[in-house]
Amino acid sequence: MKTFGVIMAGGSGERFWPLSRRDTPKQLLNLTGRDLLVNEAAERLFGVCEREDLLIVTGKSQTEKMRAATAKYLKAEQILSEPAARNTAACIGYAAMKLQKRCGEAVMVVTPADAYIKDTESFRKTLETAVKAAEGGALVTVGIRPTFPATGYGYLRCEGGEKGDAARKVLQFVEKPSLERAQEYLSAGGYLWNSGMFVWKISAILQAFRRYLPEAYKILSEIAKADGTAEEREVTEKLYPLIPSVSVDYGIMEKAENILVVPGDFGWSDVGSFDMLSAVREADEKGNVVIGELLGADVENCVIYNRQKPVAAIGVKDLVIVETDDVLLVCAKDRAQDVKKIVEKLRSEGREELL
Amino acid sequence: MKTFGVIMAGGSGERFWPLSRRDTPKQLLNLTGRDLLVNEAAERLFGVCEREDLLIVTGKSQTEKMRAATAKYLKAEQILSEPAARNTAACIGYAAMKLQKRCGEAVMVVTPADAYIKDTESFRKTLETAVKAAEGGALVTVGIRPTFPATGYGYLRCEGGEKGDAARKVLQFVEKPSLERAQEYLSAGGYLWNSGMFVWKISAILQAFRRYLPEAYKILSEIAKADGTAEEREVTEKLYPLIPSVSVDYGIMEKAENILVVPGDFGWSDVGSFDMLSAVREADEKGNVVIGELLGADVENCVIYNRQKPVAAIGVKDLVIVETDDVLLVCAKDRAQDVKKIVEKLRSEGREELL
Repeated sequence: MKTFGVIMAGGSGERFWPLSRRDTPKQLLNLTGRDLLVNEAAERLFGVCEREDLLIVTGKSQTEKMRAATAKYLKAEQILSEPAARNTAACIGYAAMKLQKRCGEAVMVVTPADAYIKDTESFRKTLETAVKAAEGGALVTVGIRPTFPATGYGYLRCEGGEKGDAARKVLQFVEKPSLERAQEYLSAGGYLWNSGMFVWKISAILQAFRRYLPEAYKILSEIAKADGTAEEREVTEKLYPLIPSVSVDYGIMEKAENILVVPGDFGWSDVGSFDMLSAVREADEKGNVVIGELLGADVENCVIYNRQKPVAAIGVKDLVIVETDDVLLVCAKDRAQDVKKIVEKLRSEGREELL
Repeated sequence: MKTFGVIMAGGSGERFWPLSRRDTPKQLLNLTGRDLLVNEAAERLFGVCEREDLLIVTGKSQTEKMRAATAKYLKAEQILSEPAARNTAACIGYAAMKLQKRCGEAVMVVTPADAYIKDTESFRKTLETAVKAAEGGALVTVGIRPTFPATGYGYLRCEGGEKGDAARKVLQFVEKPSLERAQEYLSAGGYLWNSGMFVWKISAILQAFRRYLPEAYKILSEIAKADGTAEEREVTEKLYPLIPSVSVDYGIMEKAENILVVPGDFGWSDVGSFDMLSAVREADEKGNVVIGELLGADVENCVIYNRQKPVAAIGVKDLVIVETDDVLLVCAKDRAQDVKKIVEKLRSEGREELL
């Protein structure tokens, strides 16, 4: 069966402000030192699908920049533009309808645009297993074998433990846990991190939409009817914003019964905030991840990113220091999540020039 | 008796890097928000001496910039240029010889260029007392009544305690103490901070040079002989660098017997490093001294100085954050002294563009 790749690239990644901006979201940043995150995501999927069988779904305001950024891999029409951000279910349903129109039946491999994966070969092998499982009609997700008691990820409890490479049933979706809970999961075994990657047949996911998200299904069907007609843009612009905003996890995965998970072990990180750059970049002997120049004395476990000016640092540890053209960020590493709050504050104050 | 003012402005103030640079030393910075430190020092002395009776002694490389910076107060010839930095004794001896040539006898009031003084009226009153004491022939210094057990200043132990405004004998010069020692001084009483300000008659200080620093005296006399002749520049350039490099405290004050001190209480700080800006600038309700713009969340007791870009800070305390055109500094407040080490390292690495 033919396999399509779908990259969900609608996020803004506000926790990477001031690097990420309204028109340069996280997936368009080169955080790994190799390529833009979205291009890394695309390149990884080319081992699973053909180059012309990859779609990227992104927001209207990011579409042009996304097309330019991915031009070395993709044609402009491979970038689908959402008229409004309506969460992952809408994004996935939209892509599924488009692909059904194009080829009827096929397997869809859905991944986020902004994760880090260390071992591409292992990633592709895991997806091969997932594709085979999906061909049988299941909704398949990829679970990451936990390496530490993470509190920033959701967990999947699965039948028969977390060992081995084969697909297995998911017994429960678990919300981001407390540290204590996360430690329990790790010692109990049988838990995997929810990576937000999915594999299924077009028919299987659309059937799930019909059953669990009928309102979304109805609107997406209307949009599909207009696909390829002169009214397509107009109809999409009008109807897409009406799709209920819900995540595919909450809207479908937690409700459906035929859910399988394939465990993966390929050095995955969601690179959710600046502190996570340590997982993605090599640190110096004092644990500092330095992108740019550090003139330091007694600097430990810092993340330092400067585009233009060297950073002289003395007697500091566990800090994130980021310089951009128009603003500086100095943040305690364990507060890296709160970068979002600065962005929210700037937005509420109308500081458009910094957003 | 006529009174002259002499401002010693030869320092570099490397602890204020990256604001202070080779050609913009600390005394040419506006750290108080009112004026350049050297202009503040000049303006304060105008209550003690006439405007045309003030000299500033500075290094060769800083002379042009100093003349431009002080032009609103002083004529170019009031800026004396040292061919080489030879510490405070040389600087004071040079000024004394120049003044003797000009008017024979007078009182000299010598102050550093880079201190902060809150209460100018009180400062002038203290100096009046010191001038009267100096007219009797003593070498007079100004001691500051300590307000906390400072470890960054030298102390003067004086006869009859530290109370009252009258001049009194200095019993001992004490080096910068440990915190424990400093606390002892404070509870014992009778100790004053050494401010590095001096008042004496020209004849008294030159006599002290002849007695305690005969080598320096000899060279300064040779230079004085050439004063006003066609050879002046050449002789000064040749001989000045040969003057032994010694501080006036160590070379004269600690050895001479006719030393008096006048206690002062005018909100003095040597503004020795970034952490001291808290003494000079008003802090916000969280103890932050902000020069520029702070976009903050949970920021406490920081010193933030940015010329161009706002600083977004989250969850940090006791930091110094300074932005200039070409470099950033992020430094633990209690390590502010070590900014000098970064400067030394840059010098040893030949990073001229950052010095």
